[in-house]
Amino acid sequence: MMCTESTMPKTRFVWWNGSLVPEESVRVSPFDRGFLFGDGLFETLRADEGRALYVSDHLERLREGAIRLRLLPPGDGGASALDLNAPSVWAQRISQLLQANGLQSGSARVKIVVSRGDVSGVGLPAPKVPTVCVLAEPYTPPSQEAYARGWTLRTFRAGCTPPLAAMKTLNYLFYLWARQDAADAGFDEALLYDPLGHAAETATGSLLFLQEGRCTVSASPQRLRGTAERRILALFREDGWAVEEAAVPETGLFSFSAVWVTNSLVGIMPVRSIDGTALPRLFDAQAARYRDLFFRP
Amino acid sequence: MMCTESTMPKTRFVWWNGSLVPEESVRVSPFDRGFLFGDGLFETLRADEGRALYVSDHLERLREGAIRLRLLPPGDGGASALDLNAPSVWAQRISQLLQANGLQSGSARVKIVVSRGDVSGVGLPAPKVPTVCVLAEPYTPPSQEAYARGWTLRTFRAGCTPPLAAMKTLNYLFYLWARQDAADAGFDEALLYDPLGHAAETATGSLLFLQEGRCTVSASPQRLRGTAERRILALFREDGWAVEEAAVPETGLFSFSAVWVTNSLVGIMPVRSIDGTALPRLFDAQAARYRDLFFRP
Amino acid sequence: MMCTESTMPKTRFVWWNGSLVPEESVRVSPFDRGFLFGDGLFETLRADEGRALYVSDHLERLREGAIRLRLLPPGDGGASALDLNAPSVWAQRISQLLQANGLQSGSARVKIVVSRGDVSGVGLPAPKVPTVCVLAEPYTPPSQEAYARGWTLRTFRAGCTPPLAAMKTLNYLFYLWARQDAADAGFDEALLYDPLGHAAETATGSLLFLQEGRCTVSASPQRLRGTAERRILALFREDGWAVEEAAVPETGLFSFSAVWVTNSLVGIMPVRSIDGTALPRLFDAQAARYRDLFFRP
Amino acid sequence: MMCTESTMPKTRFVWWNGSLVPEESVRVSPFDRGFLFGDGLFETLRADEGRALYVSDHLERLREGAIRLRLLPPGDGGASALDLNAPSVWAQRISQLLQANGLQSGSARVKIVVSRGDVSGVGLPAPKVPTVCVLAEPYTPPSQEAYARGWTLRTFRAGCTPPLAAMKTLNYLFYLWARQDAADAGFDEALLYDPLGHAAETATGSLLFLQEGRCTVSASPQRLRGTAERRILALFREDGWAVEEAAVPETGLFSFSAVWVTNSLVGIMPVRSIDGTALPRLFDAQAARYRDLFFRP
Repeated sequence: MMCTESTMPKTRFVWWNGSLVPEESVRVSPFDRGFLFGDGLFETLRADEGRALYVSDHLERLREGAIRLRLLPPGDGGASALDLNAPSVWAQRISQLLQANGLQSGSARVKIVVSRGDVSGVGLPAPKVPTVCVLAEPYTPPSQEAYARGWTLRTFRAGCTPPLAAMKTLNYLFYLWARQDAADAGFDEALLYDPLGHAAETATGSLLFLQEGRCTVSASPQRLRGTAERRILALFREDGWAVEEAAVPETGLFSFSAVWVTNSLVGIMPVRSIDGTALPRLFDAQAARYRDLFFRP
Repeated sequence: MMCTESTMPKTRFVWWNGSLVPEESVRVSPFDRGFLFGDGLFETLRADEGRALYVSDHLERLREGAIRLRLLPPGDGGASALDLNAPSVWAQRISQLLQANGLQSGSARVKIVVSRGDVSGVGLPAPKVPTVCVLAEPYTPPSQEAYARGWTLRTFRAGCTPPLAAMKTLNYLFYLWARQDAADAGFDEALLYDPLGHAAETATGSLLFLQEGRCTVSASPQRLRGTAERRILALFREDGWAVEEAAVPETGLFSFSAVWVTNSLVGIMPVRSIDGTALPRLFDAQAARYRDLFFRP
Repeated sequence: MMCTESTMPKTRFVWWNGSLVPEESVRVSPFDRGFLFGDGLFETLRADEGRALYVSDHLERLREGAIRLRLLPPGDGGASALDLNAPSVWAQRISQLLQANGLQSGSARVKIVVSRGDVSGVGLPAPKVPTVCVLAEPYTPPSQEAYARGWTLRTFRAGCTPPLAAMKTLNYLFYLWARQDAADAGFDEALLYDPLGHAAETATGSLLFLQEGRCTVSASPQRLRGTAERRILALFREDGWAVEEAAVPETGLFSFSAVWVTNSLVGIMPVRSIDGTALPRLFDAQAARYRDLFFRP
Repeated sequence: MMCTESTMPKTRFVWWNGSLVPEESVRVSPFDRGFLFGDGLFETLRADEGRALYVSDHLERLREGAIRLRLLPPGDGGASALDLNAPSVWAQRISQLLQANGLQSGSARVKIVVSRGDVSGVGLPAPKVPTVCVLAEPYTPPSQEAYARGWTLRTFRAGCTPPLAAMKTLNYLFYLWARQDAADAGFDEALLYDPLGHAAETATGSLLFLQEGRCTVSASPQRLRGTAERRILALFREDGWAVEEAAVPETGLFSFSAVWVTNSLVGIMPVRSIDGTALPRLFDAQAARYRDLFFRP
């Protein structure tokens, strides 16, 4: 391995269709449907100290999406690159990738990308060889101060969640657009509604709506079910919280004591305000406690 | 040039960030935001006998989208790869690409793809170097029989047009999904509605709704304004047709004498039936006439 | 009482703001906001042999709606006409009404209507005296043959469920319109979708989606929660059925073994076909069994 | 006539199915479908000095709606109460009504209400005798100061315009609800969006979006086309303004110099602010000028 702990690698390494290679050796074809059409799926994982968190959860969601989008090659045996059933293989793969990039300590953002590759056809043709890659980059988690301050949310008014919202596809432009709209106005994150006018999610995370001893998640069918959300709800249940799904219209947002954003990277981030109106409480101590439990499973 | 008219080229050539290179030399970075997020735009042009059609129309739409998505580098002068104001430069570029691929005779599908390239940030960060490529592939137009038969449309029921529908972005998965749904059920093409329940477009084209001497196009703001549609409407107006925009609910589809699909590749394709119900007429002769005028400007 | 069992009453009696009076004596003011704006709520109950079914369920829904729409007079004590907390009072009231109309045997359709009355103001002003009336008319239930045949449903394409869909308001024109659309095309009933494209309800009933041992109801927040639906789900649960809420897109309708419509008048009506496509099974025997249990609580 | 100019009438007179009668003599049946289902249409006109304005415009819209909702009795000749083709007859009718109510001077709000009457059937059954009534009440126009101050608008977040929005039906509860929401929060009027997220109208009026020499109206198909709007646009065109229809997303509201609300009662009311953000200008002088022209045709 050409990189040691003491030197940052000059080059990024990528896991690419079966091998660990320097970024320069990777050749995504310009005919790759991931590049041409956003025809594929991805997952974002957090790794701490060289180990990715909740690998099997992400693979499960990836596999479900791949079935719906017909991304699995016909007759694909367990030996293929897209062996989404073997979390331990993937955990090792990610571990090697992190080491190659000098990320065996600290935090990292790991991304698994699967696309249909280079195959002709307007529709969802069976892939010949899907493109599979894993990327890793350094990630600086929010500071204690940032968590204590919480995020400011801004409602995104230029459109509601897209039809494919329930899958984590390479069609991510809508979310980037919403996030930019929030950033332009000086907010941390965008709050998205579904076509019924119910709060669905944020550009990059799931929403938890809290009251004493009770957590509500959006019942909207047009949102991504977060892997972090699922784990945190399980922790709540263990502690005796009531967990329920409900439609959350804009007019009901401030009836909750606190709202949290959750995703694989930040864990739990309290929301300080929505469209400039402060939320009554952040539930700081509890956010910190569950964030710890989430990141140290 | 290694390919002659008598031999199909062994390799595909691609115009890539300023040069004409063999496909194998092209390296889309796995960190390219086009690949990771569908963060970019594209245009599909038809070329006949080595000459691309309506280049300036496509560049104009590309430029408008690039401004909205902030894809143009700050301070970008006219000399850059993304010089979207110079149709003649692009026409020559495409001409050379077609020749390199042995496509100087017959028809070809040309695709211009622009992505934000490799730059960090959740949102729409200013690109350092946008990725720009032009691809060309052989295209077999529909036969006279296929045009005479017309397309069968199937309504896509699993979602309405996405929020970014008015731009031709690399987020194309929704349209591929709709097209596959139609194909699975034995239809030629998918008919898409906007969130108001008004006919918006098809997966790959614009809709023209015809009566004697009158053409209606969908007033839906949530659809792509086709470059072919614009040219054909101009031909209609020259011939004294009335051209109007109107909301077209599903219940109003069969009040028209004929419905046509139009895009840059097929020109004009009459619709034979919608969800199994035949349309009264195809206006065949007129479709052929305007198709000819469109492809031989 | 001027009417006996052997003679149909010449006049209809109505319970009106506290008294049982002949229809001719009732004077709805032309300034009544129920008449001017549809500003009110209603409930439809079935009565058999002089006794209304599930009175408390209907009153509960009426009360919830009245609170949301501010239809209750301020400081209204239990003695007022709108005493929605006293099912036994209402049951007796309805019983007298049925007798006055010669409907003490056979079936009847009973309707409770509450409007804001005559009060000025654009908005939801506090009512001075809400208008409350109860109507009763003969009702002929579907025959055994009609139940065995089942209803044919037709999707209503001219609009999705309205914003107030979760309340049973006097704004009922949308449902009448949908029902007429179905009838015009030779169908029994209209199938309605919410703005997300999920099956919500029919024009006059709730939908139950069935598989062996499992019943799914629409999770759509934009539909009326049926009082009959609630009772029938309780019967299912007693018998060990799994009961769940889920989003039901149009593409998923035929993955169920059977679909039933349920409302207070027909109880359970199996669906024979949707838009002309037959459903695999009607679950006839079970429909008959639960219908019996529902009508003979 | 029992009322003179010097005494306010003790009783309100109503034009009711062909005659001018005291309110007490009017008997809307509790079985009237206007009362039971909001199954009907209405128009609101302003009268000044005993004369109703733009009667023919309102009758035209009423007639169009009545045809769509099948409110006209089959074989209805010109002699019936619903003779919507005779503006002069209606003008005289309204004039008599105003006089009977002591409203021959000052301003009045006149309301024409048409319902399907008492007829059985779930759907839109042919009416036997439609209910037709005309009501008149005193109306106090906004003062010069109120016009100069302008209205504050508040976006209504609890739902978008209903499916029947393009017709002025007796299903008006959604608009009352929106107006109440605005009033509760201390605003003058509610701003409504259509399901695409485009500004459609206000609870009680149409929107005009202004720039120097140019007026834009909402292209949304899901809004009521105002009769006042139509007249004011005609005045603009006479003066050489450009008039256009366009989709107006929430993000585009503040790109206009001024926004006006228009309806038959207030004529033109400038908008001072939207959701608390002030609009740059009110175009006061022009609003006053066109309001004058509108009210003194």
